[in-house]
Amino acid sequence: MTAVSEQCQKSHYDVIATEKIKALWQNYQRTRDYSLQICSTLSDEDIQSQSMSDASPLKWHLAHTTWAFETFILKPSIPNYQPFNPHFEFLFNSYYNAIGAQYPRANRGLLIRPTRSEVETYRRSIDKLMKALFDEGLDRELYNLIELLIHHEQQHQELMFTDFKHLTSFTPFDYQYFSQGVKIESNLLPVKSNASIGFSSGLYNIGSNDDSFYFDNEGPRHRVFLEAFAIDSQLVSNREYLEFIDDGGYQEPSYWLSEAWYKIKEKSITHPLYWQNKENKWLEHTFSGEKEIVPELPVKHINYFEANAFASWKGKRLPSEYEWEVAAQSQNNSFNMMEQLWQWTSSSYNAYPGFKTASGAIGEYNGKFMVNQYVLRGGSVATPADHIRTTYRNFFYPGASWQFTGIRLAETL
Amino acid sequence: MTAVSEQCQKSHYDVIATEKIKALWQNYQRTRDYSLQICSTLSDEDIQSQSMSDASPLKWHLAHTTWAFETFILKPSIPNYQPFNPHFEFLFNSYYNAIGAQYPRANRGLLIRPTRSEVETYRRSIDKLMKALFDEGLDRELYNLIELLIHHEQQHQELMFTDFKHLTSFTPFDYQYFSQGVKIESNLLPVKSNASIGFSSGLYNIGSNDDSFYFDNEGPRHRVFLEAFAIDSQLVSNREYLEFIDDGGYQEPSYWLSEAWYKIKEKSITHPLYWQNKENKWLEHTFSGEKEIVPELPVKHINYFEANAFASWKGKRLPSEYEWEVAAQSQNNSFNMMEQLWQWTSSSYNAYPGFKTASGAIGEYNGKFMVNQYVLRGGSVATPADHIRTTYRNFFYPGASWQFTGIRLAETL
Amino acid sequence: MTAVSEQCQKSHYDVIATEKIKALWQNYQRTRDYSLQICSTLSDEDIQSQSMSDASPLKWHLAHTTWAFETFILKPSIPNYQPFNPHFEFLFNSYYNAIGAQYPRANRGLLIRPTRSEVETYRRSIDKLMKALFDEGLDRELYNLIELLIHHEQQHQELMFTDFKHLTSFTPFDYQYFSQGVKIESNLLPVKSNASIGFSSGLYNIGSNDDSFYFDNEGPRHRVFLEAFAIDSQLVSNREYLEFIDDGGYQEPSYWLSEAWYKIKEKSITHPLYWQNKENKWLEHTFSGEKEIVPELPVKHINYFEANAFASWKGKRLPSEYEWEVAAQSQNNSFNMMEQLWQWTSSSYNAYPGFKTASGAIGEYNGKFMVNQYVLRGGSVATPADHIRTTYRNFFYPGASWQFTGIRLAETL
Amino acid sequence: MTAVSEQCQKSHYDVIATEKIKALWQNYQRTRDYSLQICSTLSDEDIQSQSMSDASPLKWHLAHTTWAFETFILKPSIPNYQPFNPHFEFLFNSYYNAIGAQYPRANRGLLIRPTRSEVETYRRSIDKLMKALFDEGLDRELYNLIELLIHHEQQHQELMFTDFKHLTSFTPFDYQYFSQGVKIESNLLPVKSNASIGFSSGLYNIGSNDDSFYFDNEGPRHRVFLEAFAIDSQLVSNREYLEFIDDGGYQEPSYWLSEAWYKIKEKSITHPLYWQNKENKWLEHTFSGEKEIVPELPVKHINYFEANAFASWKGKRLPSEYEWEVAAQSQNNSFNMMEQLWQWTSSSYNAYPGFKTASGAIGEYNGKFMVNQYVLRGGSVATPADHIRTTYRNFFYPGASWQFTGIRLAETL
Repeated sequence: MTAVSEQCQKSHYDVIATEKIKALWQNYQRTRDYSLQICSTLSDEDIQSQSMSDASPLKWHLAHTTWAFETFILKPSIPNYQPFNPHFEFLFNSYYNAIGAQYPRANRGLLIRPTRSEVETYRRSIDKLMKALFDEGLDRELYNLIELLIHHEQQHQELMFTDFKHLTSFTPFDYQYFSQGVKIESNLLPVKSNASIGFSSGLYNIGSNDDSFYFDNEGPRHRVFLEAFAIDSQLVSNREYLEFIDDGGYQEPSYWLSEAWYKIKEKSITHPLYWQNKENKWLEHTFSGEKEIVPELPVKHINYFEANAFASWKGKRLPSEYEWEVAAQSQNNSFNMMEQLWQWTSSSYNAYPGFKTASGAIGEYNGKFMVNQYVLRGGSVATPADHIRTTYRNFFYPGASWQFTGIRLAETL
Repeated sequence: MTAVSEQCQKSHYDVIATEKIKALWQNYQRTRDYSLQICSTLSDEDIQSQSMSDASPLKWHLAHTTWAFETFILKPSIPNYQPFNPHFEFLFNSYYNAIGAQYPRANRGLLIRPTRSEVETYRRSIDKLMKALFDEGLDRELYNLIELLIHHEQQHQELMFTDFKHLTSFTPFDYQYFSQGVKIESNLLPVKSNASIGFSSGLYNIGSNDDSFYFDNEGPRHRVFLEAFAIDSQLVSNREYLEFIDDGGYQEPSYWLSEAWYKIKEKSITHPLYWQNKENKWLEHTFSGEKEIVPELPVKHINYFEANAFASWKGKRLPSEYEWEVAAQSQNNSFNMMEQLWQWTSSSYNAYPGFKTASGAIGEYNGKFMVNQYVLRGGSVATPADHIRTTYRNFFYPGASWQFTGIRLAETL
Repeated sequence: MTAVSEQCQKSHYDVIATEKIKALWQNYQRTRDYSLQICSTLSDEDIQSQSMSDASPLKWHLAHTTWAFETFILKPSIPNYQPFNPHFEFLFNSYYNAIGAQYPRANRGLLIRPTRSEVETYRRSIDKLMKALFDEGLDRELYNLIELLIHHEQQHQELMFTDFKHLTSFTPFDYQYFSQGVKIESNLLPVKSNASIGFSSGLYNIGSNDDSFYFDNEGPRHRVFLEAFAIDSQLVSNREYLEFIDDGGYQEPSYWLSEAWYKIKEKSITHPLYWQNKENKWLEHTFSGEKEIVPELPVKHINYFEANAFASWKGKRLPSEYEWEVAAQSQNNSFNMMEQLWQWTSSSYNAYPGFKTASGAIGEYNGKFMVNQYVLRGGSVATPADHIRTTYRNFFYPGASWQFTGIRLAETL
Repeated sequence: MTAVSEQCQKSHYDVIATEKIKALWQNYQRTRDYSLQICSTLSDEDIQSQSMSDASPLKWHLAHTTWAFETFILKPSIPNYQPFNPHFEFLFNSYYNAIGAQYPRANRGLLIRPTRSEVETYRRSIDKLMKALFDEGLDRELYNLIELLIHHEQQHQELMFTDFKHLTSFTPFDYQYFSQGVKIESNLLPVKSNASIGFSSGLYNIGSNDDSFYFDNEGPRHRVFLEAFAIDSQLVSNREYLEFIDDGGYQEPSYWLSEAWYKIKEKSITHPLYWQNKENKWLEHTFSGEKEIVPELPVKHINYFEANAFASWKGKRLPSEYEWEVAAQSQNNSFNMMEQLWQWTSSSYNAYPGFKTASGAIGEYNGKFMVNQYVLRGGSVATPADHIRTTYRNFFYPGASWQFTGIRLAETL
């Protein structure tokens, strides 16, 4: 879904300090453990099934993230490397055409074997080989690539939550899937009193130029000219979204993009994914079953079309990704711009000026998805905390609702 | 998929001898155990996934067959019966509209809960209540209904094998799914030298009038007039089917029904399901992986369209279900008419003269499927042995290939 | 859609009397003229468009029926025959794989050229060559084949009415498409008081053995044994069908075949094709616009699923095609068995015992459609009068509603 | 497909000079006549059929453009206006939800009535009423709205050519559809020697601020900051595109966006729409049949995915719409930027800062299409000459190939 750091492209030999390697190893271990921890309260069935082709089984996520270390690190680093299982190259390759053919995405839930226990053995085996590699020391290229793949596994950790939530919505009665320890939905904070924060027109710098990790699509850093704009300090709340519904929002074509209008009419959609109205109460599906909507919490699992329609109804608009980034960097995140919900921007996902796709398979990480998707900014309660930054560009198709996505509004001044 | 014995309809009180009840209880236990035994070497993942909407997960079969005893026996027999889980009525109802709404068939593989262990508890709990019922004695109506549901579970046992075989074909490398004890594919016998056995024209009696169990669709017994015909003593072998393929059978439209021709061209089908040609060898997918085709064994997993095309190529035709039944009853099964492979007949599945659908939910067992399906006769290596009889009418859509289906040819004299 | 007379297969030279040839020529002329007459009040647009892939544009029917004479008569009879237009072989071949590839059926309405006027020139040109052939005299083989193709054009004449009616239903306001002279819908007669006519069990002869023309699928004549049955003297009326609707017929699953139930629920079907309820009045679409339903007329444009559901509701069943034929031959058609509406039978369309497909392209006329279709008997107000006979076997898919199809009920005694 | 001028929004009374009105009337007449002229050599069938739901029948275009004058001009201007035909409001409303329901787009080719002659009468009748209105004088609001609808009809004139070209590709042999007078394809000029023209980084003004007509989506005029870039002086030629094909361009995934790759593999696409390889010659479908590809002409009927893949292969990229506009305004069009082929830009179609949708039905003209489409610039040989300007923003889905679309490349300096 995302990318390779620019540093990866500098492939000259470059010794990395032992301390830095140690820190990376700890990061590696922590990340690898967390993937298993997510599944620790789940049954074998829970991590087997696939509810739509956009989502993957959790067992597949566990294997694929491991496959990535095996394929991009171990295979080129260890002479005469013998793969753990030669079939895995095909089964757990997500979309890297340069690596080879891929098992059909829509059938991932039909992979009854390897079993969970075999996948866990696979993980341990690869981790052991990775440990040996770390012990030998890493050059800069390897260091950067491993760092990238740690971030890659973190991306999949968020998907594990969102894909699994989608799957649980097909079991029509309540289970407590996660232990109390795993706070996801309960970390959402109530929306406060809203303010519109103004920014003057001018040239702004956009994109990362940081020493710390970023994906290739976050650069190159470059200038954009923005007209004066204002952005809301708060996410849109359930209460406001309910007002939109109650005002006939899903029945009035003038709020909706044409493509969206035909879709919601064809499928008789009248509310967000995971909502249902039962005896005049609005309920939402959560990891612990059907719960009543809490009006003051931010509205979530909203797709681009809904976000856009809500903005039209409100007489505002979605921010561009540039406006969002400028606001996020100026506000020190005091407005919950990050770590609550991904926020749709009006920006179609495209390359920054001067962006170059890396060569080889890793070049397929980000660039080839730059059409028909829209940029989301900010991170969510399901995103690992050290995976969030103001320059981060997430992207999904405008009809996608199964991520933890919300709405922040803007306007031209 | 099939039906209720005529006796069920006599609902007057009628005491059944203790010995007969004891025998039924043993039959019940044996049947219930066998369902679990089929799954005993399979992982939780194996019994969770669903490879197409025509097939069901094995976990679902385990639950549904239990649901049938709970719904049709316990619920009406036990005053103030409290269901094991009120959601199960919806989840494990296959197609009984008279019982209520049904969970969407295509989503059965998304039911991550109840888990396997919860389903096993469900089975034990219902079996315990059934035992108590048996201990109290059964009237004729209950006796007949339980007998029907035992046969119902046997039907599902065959489907467990065929549905699971379909699922395993999506895991593209070899596993030994069953222990040596479970002989299915290995029970197929080589085809011997073929003979064409003649029958003279005349009136024949068709259908069951037996005292022993039969489904409603096997009656009423009635007369049909048959012109003189001959039927082959042997099933078609892999060798003969390979000749058909080698002779361009899948490329010559005149052998094929029009509907079939468009399908095989659209999907580029050139051989039976589960076959593939690898380095000039024909392999077939089995429960223990890809195996080379054995020429002398009967060809299997053939659909009606293929059977019909093969017959055209051979200058013969498929037998009608009447011809098949007359032959089977005359031959004492010396020609492997039963217990090897289901055999397609040219008869569309329809009601026998005077057939009446039973009232209530159980009436949905058979009658409502009487359109666009074709009758198969004979049973297969996956059919429980005491579930096979000469009057048995199995039925599938003409495009279905995932059952253990073969070809026997006939001709008009 | 249907077939070749058995006589065609006797290909020995056999001189035909001049008088018989003259009569055939008159038949030819009358038939060819009628096709043009059907279109005489229609615009170029009317005969151009195609409303579904099951139906064809009238312009295409005009060309295809001409193509049949060119392909099956002129081409083999005239040495060095130069086709009228070499592209027409591809464009106007309906489904004869033995002739060659076919223009995709669903795109027939996109054939803007040849224009109507070019097609009319094509017709005249072929007719002229046919006249020359007739003038030279015909042997039996040619005679029979021409007779077959005259019947073929008559079949298409009925389709011209039914396909065009379907097309007109997409123009949502009223036109008078045909002149007063063309009586189709207005030839339907009111249903009278119904009687149930009994027939005793026994052996009956089925199929044609006539000297006059019949299609190959009407033979060979053979015996069938029928149990005692009774058949209604009258077609089902709109009034009775409205009672079925008012009684919740489309909401009660127990009346419907399983496949039908899912379809009518999925598509929210609650009444026959061409009906609509407007301000509490039932209207039907006709060739002269929306008209109020006349209760005493027979219900039409009913598919097999509806006919079957109505029969279940009524506690009766559809007749088999054998029962229908026995009744029709005994009653001298005093019960409007013919010339009103095609009547669905419970018989799946299959070969009579001993049926052999003719060799060559003409063998594709009937046999290859013998799966998943149901036999209709009797003819309709849209069928040319001399194209109707008691042994005639029409066939359509059970979901087809756009033919002039009605219901006659039967029961087992 | 496009929009309303900003001036329209000033609705105060404002007398327009007689001379200006006279000029507008001449423009009106010329435009209305041209629509009929396009069809003058076409048959009734040619203007009836619809080859895909994205395209409309020419008869429908003739009626819809007339409907627009009736609905937006006559209806609000003439007291107690009686519509020409009350059904036309529904039939010829393209997508204006504020006007009411619309006849299903995919069925436009099934509207056999009104006939061509009735549509021509409709046109004359509305023109007559428009003439009367012009004679009474126009206020500014009416003037602007009529001017907008003249441009609207011009847009449809281009679509008439592109939609009809698509339709003719289904008639698989050659016709000369247009007279020699109608030059479309023959107006394409050979590509000359290419140069890369550089532009320095800086702030540029984008969008129209002209007194002459423009659509709402071309404004408001605003500033953008562009990094230094260079743009090619020439369109990509057939010769260059053939090199891409010969180099395996359609077989190498790394050139393609992920979504595009799956599409071309699924549909086995290996060349542009309308091309075919026949006996080792590349032919293209034209208005006068299949013609050999001329290497020096610009490649056309290219979709966004192909344009993007070609750019990747070439090591360049598509220009943004801003870069294109800056280049077009600086070059005085000496590089065939306009009037040859629409050129894909990398810009997703979105609102300019400060863009507001007009209120009422006319507000649906442009804004509601601002998702998942890409901006094309420059006009084509099928565009009416006075309908082309440097600020014009055309937009289509990235998979669309049936417009006259080509490729111009750019690069970041």
